[in-house]
Amino acid sequence: MADTLRLAVIPGDGIGTEVTAEALKVLGAVLDGGATKVATTEYDLGARRWHATGETLPDSVLGEIREHDAILLGAVGDPGVPSGVLERGLLLRLRFELDQYVNLRPSVLYPGVATPLAAPGEVDFVVVREGTEGPYVGNGGALRVGTPAEIATEVSVNTAFGVERVVRDAFRRAAARPRKKLTLVHKHNVLVHAGHLWRRTVEAVGAQFPDVAVDYAHVDAATIYLVTDPSRFDVIVTDNLFGDILTDLAAAITGGIGLAASGNVNPDRSAPSMFEPVHGSAPDIAGQQKADPTAAVLSVGMLLEHLGLDAEARRVQAAVATDLGRRASGEIAGPRRTGEVGDALAALVS
Amino acid sequence: MADTLRLAVIPGDGIGTEVTAEALKVLGAVLDGGATKVATTEYDLGARRWHATGETLPDSVLGEIREHDAILLGAVGDPGVPSGVLERGLLLRLRFELDQYVNLRPSVLYPGVATPLAAPGEVDFVVVREGTEGPYVGNGGALRVGTPAEIATEVSVNTAFGVERVVRDAFRRAAARPRKKLTLVHKHNVLVHAGHLWRRTVEAVGAQFPDVAVDYAHVDAATIYLVTDPSRFDVIVTDNLFGDILTDLAAAITGGIGLAASGNVNPDRSAPSMFEPVHGSAPDIAGQQKADPTAAVLSVGMLLEHLGLDAEARRVQAAVATDLGRRASGEIAGPRRTGEVGDALAALVS
Ligand SMILES: CC(C)[C@H](C(=O)O)[C@@H](O)C(=O)O
Ligand SMILES: CC(C)[C@H](C(=O)O)[C@@H](O)C(=O)O
Repeated sequence: MADTLRLAVIPGDGIGTEVTAEALKVLGAVLDGGATKVATTEYDLGARRWHATGETLPDSVLGEIREHDAILLGAVGDPGVPSGVLERGLLLRLRFELDQYVNLRPSVLYPGVATPLAAPGEVDFVVVREGTEGPYVGNGGALRVGTPAEIATEVSVNTAFGVERVVRDAFRRAAARPRKKLTLVHKHNVLVHAGHLWRRTVEAVGAQFPDVAVDYAHVDAATIYLVTDPSRFDVIVTDNLFGDILTDLAAAITGGIGLAASGNVNPDRSAPSMFEPVHGSAPDIAGQQKADPTAAVLSVGMLLEHLGLDAEARRVQAAVATDLGRRASGEIAGPRRTGEVGDALAALVS
Repeated sequence: MADTLRLAVIPGDGIGTEVTAEALKVLGAVLDGGATKVATTEYDLGARRWHATGETLPDSVLGEIREHDAILLGAVGDPGVPSGVLERGLLLRLRFELDQYVNLRPSVLYPGVATPLAAPGEVDFVVVREGTEGPYVGNGGALRVGTPAEIATEVSVNTAFGVERVVRDAFRRAAARPRKKLTLVHKHNVLVHAGHLWRRTVEAVGAQFPDVAVDYAHVDAATIYLVTDPSRFDVIVTDNLFGDILTDLAAAITGGIGLAASGNVNPDRSAPSMFEPVHGSAPDIAGQQKADPTAAVLSVGMLLEHLGLDAEARRVQAAVATDLGRRASGEIAGPRRTGEVGDALAALVS
């Protein structure tokens, strides 16, 4: 990366714009006085633009975004946009066009953070969710829509090419972690074709990572483990849809989606990676400075790590841990405004 | 139904045989002295038979099973059978061939039962999982298997015919419950074709059930609600795969799959319905009289209800509630043998 980080920013809608402002505040603070400068370009994409122009992601805008080192996204959507329009037309289009095949979602239960589990134990795992295949490809369709003879199909596409690269990435991450454990989650007893491809791939790639212990859980059983024994997980590798489901549940047990960050990573760096909180645009609390920007700030931490700015990334993570600790101890009490949380975190990383 | 209940019994493998014995014990006890007699035919199906003969479900056996009023299944499988063989060849084949399109899975947190949730609240909902369509249809395949050019697909098939009938069944059940609430769970922002068919169907059928309140959750959000606010659910209607995932999680929060019963119901009664515990054959504890037969016994309760033997069904449910209450109060302490639990429940229903 050059000395200037060219960052495409898509604040989006609702609380997306609010949390993105704080994320950028913290990013500015952590880089302040260092060798790396940031140059941001803001893109007006999401529900507002769609209502105004009917556009989701014009090719020209996609072309411009490509020229950046990374993307920071807040959240998009509002109840007035038909379901699927922004998801398929903007969010998934970015993930697919920019070949962000590693959808990275860490789950850490910070000390003192409230969890719905009575006895969570230590929770520190990461889900490596495939980002460019599976049931998300949009291959499918419908016939005789609206008639009693309607048929609608959704095709999950899984290729050796696509599965191998994400499984390899997951093994690399597992090998770099202290526990060195990888769990494949699928449903290979029912989805036998896709499942057996995943399984054989994990076996084959795993042979090149003899230090990494490998196990397997069906997706239904994995949801049980997430609430009864989440400590068993270190790295989970799974397909696009199972990963979507598991990571929301994982967020719930580690303090809620208000704290869950994610990276849509293109490890080959043929296009920029995109970092975003797992939560949505939350129209019900939008514009009220009620949203917790922590997930967006942690997404900035993942962005910094992805760009090799490890020390800065650690400072962001440490700031969040400190802030959450202060909440747990009661040193910080009561609700804070979105901007206050951002100020506190910016001060902590400075 | 005639005065004799013709029951096909598939004990299966591992703890399947142990829990089925207790379920039949309780069934015998609850019907003892009443007008209805039971005539059971036992079918040797599952891993043992497959190892011995290579057969999963011969057509002739399926033909015989069809001639029964209902089916009681324990659990099938052992680690020596390749993944998918018994699932697709026996379990799913039964569900599909016998058109068991309503896969019914109640989730009730009985007082005093241990749950991983710190503050579960009252939990009493039922998942109506579609049983004959979705990603379970086995439509899909693989090309160039074992090469770097492999592609594997899984096709989710959803028809107006199939969705309408299960949605209608779910509305009927919701209308008959005190809270009269139905939640559709899907992922219509990504799986737009299937999702919009489900959504339109719920709207259309819902218009005929004006007393039933309807809402919607994406499957990822639904897993969050299941651990943060399970009381919000009354009847959930969802597709085959989402239902599989949600019901294991639902079982986990209501005391574990040792207590979770299920019915694979053919509401049109064109073929027998099948009742089975949600758990598997648990080879690790098989043959040791360690399994809790409660889920199998509750499955008998569902079977009785399906056959219109409501008073007997209620006695079975009450017996389980009493037994669980005694465990919670400490009146019954320590682990009991499978047979002891069955004896206790049989005594309670007599
Ligand atoms: C909004 C939706 C398309 C998206 C997904 O399903 O991937 C979201 O749930 C997520 O997890 O990032
Ligand atoms: C064993 C498997 C085929 C089955 C399913 O996926 O339906 C099981 O998980 C269940 O929920 O009954």
